[in-house]
Amino acid sequence: MKDFERNVYLSNVELEEAKKMFFNEINDVISNLKTKNISVYDSLDRITSEPVFAKISSPFFNASAMDGIGVKSKETYGADERTPKKLILKEDFNYIDTGDVIEEPYDAVVMIEDVIPIDEESVQIIKAVSPWQHVRPMGEDIVASEMILPAYHKITPVDIGALLSGGIVEIEVLERPRVGILATGTELIEPDDEIKPGKIIDSNSRMFEAMVKSYGGEPNRYRPIPDNYNLIRDMILKAAQENDIVVINAGSSAGMEDYTSKIISEIGKLILHGVAIKPGKPAILGKVNNKPVVGIPGYPVSAYIVFEAFVKPIIYKYQKYKDARKQSVEAVLSKRIMSSLKHLEFVRMKLGKVNGRLIATPLNRGAGVTMSLVKADGITKIPKNLEGIEAGQSVEVELLKDLDSINNTIVSIGSHDIIMDILANMLHVKHPDINLSSAHVGSMGGIMAVKRGEAHIAPIHLLDGETGSYNTEYVKKYLRNIKVSLIKGVKRLQGLMVKRGNPKNINSIEDLIREDIVFVNRQKGSGTRILLDFKLNKLGIDTASIRGYEREMTTHMTVASAVLSETAHVGLGIKSSAKAMGLDFIPIGEEEYDFIIPSEFMNDERIKGFIEILKSDEFSNKLKELGGYVIEEAGKVVDI
Amino acid sequence: MKDFERNVYLSNVELEEAKKMFFNEINDVISNLKTKNISVYDSLDRITSEPVFAKISSPFFNASAMDGIGVKSKETYGADERTPKKLILKEDFNYIDTGDVIEEPYDAVVMIEDVIPIDEESVQIIKAVSPWQHVRPMGEDIVASEMILPAYHKITPVDIGALLSGGIVEIEVLERPRVGILATGTELIEPDDEIKPGKIIDSNSRMFEAMVKSYGGEPNRYRPIPDNYNLIRDMILKAAQENDIVVINAGSSAGMEDYTSKIISEIGKLILHGVAIKPGKPAILGKVNNKPVVGIPGYPVSAYIVFEAFVKPIIYKYQKYKDARKQSVEAVLSKRIMSSLKHLEFVRMKLGKVNGRLIATPLNRGAGVTMSLVKADGITKIPKNLEGIEAGQSVEVELLKDLDSINNTIVSIGSHDIIMDILANMLHVKHPDINLSSAHVGSMGGIMAVKRGEAHIAPIHLLDGETGSYNTEYVKKYLRNIKVSLIKGVKRLQGLMVKRGNPKNINSIEDLIREDIVFVNRQKGSGTRILLDFKLNKLGIDTASIRGYEREMTTHMTVASAVLSETAHVGLGIKSSAKAMGLDFIPIGEEEYDFIIPSEFMNDERIKGFIEILKSDEFSNKLKELGGYVIEEAGKVVDI
Repeated sequence: MKDFERNVYLSNVELEEAKKMFFNEINDVISNLKTKNISVYDSLDRITSEPVFAKISSPFFNASAMDGIGVKSKETYGADERTPKKLILKEDFNYIDTGDVIEEPYDAVVMIEDVIPIDEESVQIIKAVSPWQHVRPMGEDIVASEMILPAYHKITPVDIGALLSGGIVEIEVLERPRVGILATGTELIEPDDEIKPGKIIDSNSRMFEAMVKSYGGEPNRYRPIPDNYNLIRDMILKAAQENDIVVINAGSSAGMEDYTSKIISEIGKLILHGVAIKPGKPAILGKVNNKPVVGIPGYPVSAYIVFEAFVKPIIYKYQKYKDARKQSVEAVLSKRIMSSLKHLEFVRMKLGKVNGRLIATPLNRGAGVTMSLVKADGITKIPKNLEGIEAGQSVEVELLKDLDSINNTIVSIGSHDIIMDILANMLHVKHPDINLSSAHVGSMGGIMAVKRGEAHIAPIHLLDGETGSYNTEYVKKYLRNIKVSLIKGVKRLQGLMVKRGNPKNINSIEDLIREDIVFVNRQKGSGTRILLDFKLNKLGIDTASIRGYEREMTTHMTVASAVLSETAHVGLGIKSSAKAMGLDFIPIGEEEYDFIIPSEFMNDERIKGFIEILKSDEFSNKLKELGGYVIEEAGKVVDI
Repeated sequence: MKDFERNVYLSNVELEEAKKMFFNEINDVISNLKTKNISVYDSLDRITSEPVFAKISSPFFNASAMDGIGVKSKETYGADERTPKKLILKEDFNYIDTGDVIEEPYDAVVMIEDVIPIDEESVQIIKAVSPWQHVRPMGEDIVASEMILPAYHKITPVDIGALLSGGIVEIEVLERPRVGILATGTELIEPDDEIKPGKIIDSNSRMFEAMVKSYGGEPNRYRPIPDNYNLIRDMILKAAQENDIVVINAGSSAGMEDYTSKIISEIGKLILHGVAIKPGKPAILGKVNNKPVVGIPGYPVSAYIVFEAFVKPIIYKYQKYKDARKQSVEAVLSKRIMSSLKHLEFVRMKLGKVNGRLIATPLNRGAGVTMSLVKADGITKIPKNLEGIEAGQSVEVELLKDLDSINNTIVSIGSHDIIMDILANMLHVKHPDINLSSAHVGSMGGIMAVKRGEAHIAPIHLLDGETGSYNTEYVKKYLRNIKVSLIKGVKRLQGLMVKRGNPKNINSIEDLIREDIVFVNRQKGSGTRILLDFKLNKLGIDTASIRGYEREMTTHMTVASAVLSETAHVGLGIKSSAKAMGLDFIPIGEEEYDFIIPSEFMNDERIKGFIEILKSDEFSNKLKELGGYVIEEAGKVVDI
């Protein structure tokens, strides 16, 4: 199937220009509204296609506004507490509840509080009423023929009540635009199929389904199509018949399987292939059977960005929604970002409020890293004409999450350990208001973040080469001018992680210099790296003699993953990570994983909650289950 | 069925205290979570009940990050543009697309841009690569056993993508709390039944259904129950078996049909009957079969307020949602509000941004006026200890609508005419971004609003008694210090509205003094009232001789409705209103209904859009269809 023709040349049109080109072509099509008659009961969140006028008045009759007695107002004149008037049941009055009809001969209501029962047949009243007093006139709420809702209005629960009161049972609404979702790629499998190397779970099309639903459209997903020109062409034609919008996932990069743009040129109109955004450059914009067609790159983050940029506005326009801008906030950038002059870049950001300042930390920028979107609190756009932004500068962040919950988030920056996930989860379960977000930048990175006032907590495990002690010396040296507390965490086993069965027979640090061994390292500044370098130094081993010493990973789990996938034979890491990935583990030492917390936060309710969890039996039991940890004085505060 | 026992004494516990009493009783119950295993495909917006850990890594293998060729990195060393290296297909390299597996013997990828094809069998490369360059390592996105989502997290489209990539197909989520909805009242009918005096369309329970859905619960509505003690008791028992929460609508005031609180005392625990809020005082809080039970008053606005205060927080707690506060804004009050010291009052507000200031205008405060909620942009709470708030003071408004759309709203304050609805609708259809909101306070009220800088537009029809001319004299007199434009609107017929067939044989203004005639008036300051008083004055008629002269309505339609429902024989109003209500109409004059617009707004895009609609054929045709209007120079600007 593969041929030699390769589309390496994509256009690099700027985003706003690309949108203009696209919408100029499709605006006529998407202004053609289809409508539908539905029951008012099912109309929540639907959009009216025309104004709705009341068929009947509400109330439909003159109704009592009070509980009391219906009277002829003239007969009540003169009644007061000193000179009550006696009235006879059925002759002068009738008992009446709120909402009951007021009709001839009665024209007013005396409140029950002003009625003194005498016997079953008669009462005294101690207040006079004027005509129509305490009566809700017919049409007080809704007058027949009054406009209840205008056209293009999104129906709320209250609207449903008003429509029904106005006698409206069925209502004309805009049809939800139907979005045909095609995924292409011979490598795609459904999530319940068995996964094998070379296969990819088709998750994007399910993300699109959910996005379409969120934005008010109706998703129509087709089964994934193998990379076959004719099959793909036929499916695009079919989808363009059956839907209002067609999205085609993958097959949009310049790779061998890139049929999409060719097919669109053949059976419709190709408007553009290539937009100056990152991620998302290989986006394809076109029209088939007079329907908008968007080709979306396969990387999940690219897929999300391109869907947001081009598909969401179409779904919105079909429903006459305003393409509401997301709420934006200003935040201080915690880490320099370099960017290219070739494109507008969308950087996912973690936000946290520390010392009253919103701090934005960039997440992994890889187009393939879905988790960067899962974890993101917002997105910063770096304009094409900027080469980067320095740490400490202010950036604009478009929010993806609620600002309230961001403000309630404990910001942890520092070393990585699985226990941070466990603590985050236990904390959130106990206090659903509180979130704990962890950025993994290594222990020294955590100390620097505390120094810059950008973190509430820094988890560290830093060995002092001279004293052989953990953490306190570093705090004294680097955080002299800040009052901080050191909170004891856990002791954990560090060791060499190797494939199950230890096929290379690795037994100690000394084995790392063997010619047949490839090592995978951690990044500079991480506690694990410092431990390694300390051990190597003590043994007098030259780092240049270790193959793979230069290859750096940022977490224990990615090191373990490299060993599992055999891109390295061995790496240094903690026992729980080795266990999680089914690796063998050769212990080389115990270290202390503690938390630095600026003292000013020690009375913060969120931090108190965090320390409480650290001290809990639940946490301690969970660590026993995991293995590789020793809990002795977790939660103990050491003032330095 | 009715008996003489009447519960006129409700407690008057403050809202926060009532909430505390209620939630103290039910907190244990609603902390008992039920969970459910569902497909990830259907998990949008559901809440995780436990943390979710990845089953497999993503990518599941070392994958190419680029389109290009897979190579052995060692063999590429030294290649550059001047000294390219030749590689042989299948021996030294393989063609590879983004996402393809990288496996032995290959350990890196050369980008296609750096590959020069020689023939079908061989290529030259112009760049060297290091080991694992351009390769996405296994687990780059998600490492097996990594936590993808914490417990109590609301699932987004992006989360669905990440879950599937991590091999998760089914997920444990919190059950949606099931809310049993009971409506009681012999007077209730379903909306498609025939409406008769004394009957009320059961619209509240449908509003509740939609509210439950909006808040993430599962509504379970039962058919309305007649006012029968045993029937109601049995249904509450049944509903408390079948649901997590029970709401009972109506039957909660102190009226004859008030069984609810008695029944709850009998079969469960009555916690409270009566809360110091308005509307909503007769709320009932209780527990049956250990399930929270809320009795909700029948007036639609009371029903909404009580549901929001007591039922929504239960639905939220069941789902571990934060009871997020609504966004609040500060606004300038345009009209004095008087309130009582007996309760916390919820006042519905219309908001608009005029001259950069948000202006809040209170809407109808009746508990029965659903339309006040439909039209409201927000709610201001007037504390129990305040007797009222003066115009010009700043108030806090909790938003019910999007601030963006409020900022885009043209604020019209002044006289009422059906054409305001028509203009609002045509404008919104043409420019979905723009809304027109009309407050009906009469012509003089509109002039005063313009004077205070609180309106963009004031529709007026004010007859000058001396010159006999319309509008210009008033502008000159009252708006001397403000530069305004007068935009011509329509001429419209004013006349006497009487029941079809004119049973009282009313032919002119002079008939109003007849002893057998009851009149219904408009409020002071309205153009119609000024016209009436002008005519009466000319005829030398004493207003004291007109029965009903003191009874004031604020719109043409409510006057028409009073005539239709026979609480008056005749009222003065416009022809279109008479026609809409099926009344006969005796013309007494033509008047000019025009618009005042401060000149500073004349270049505002929204105002331009408004004037454009005024001038359109579509508008003029619509008025011809309605009848009673003459269009001559609509949209013409008259500088004064």
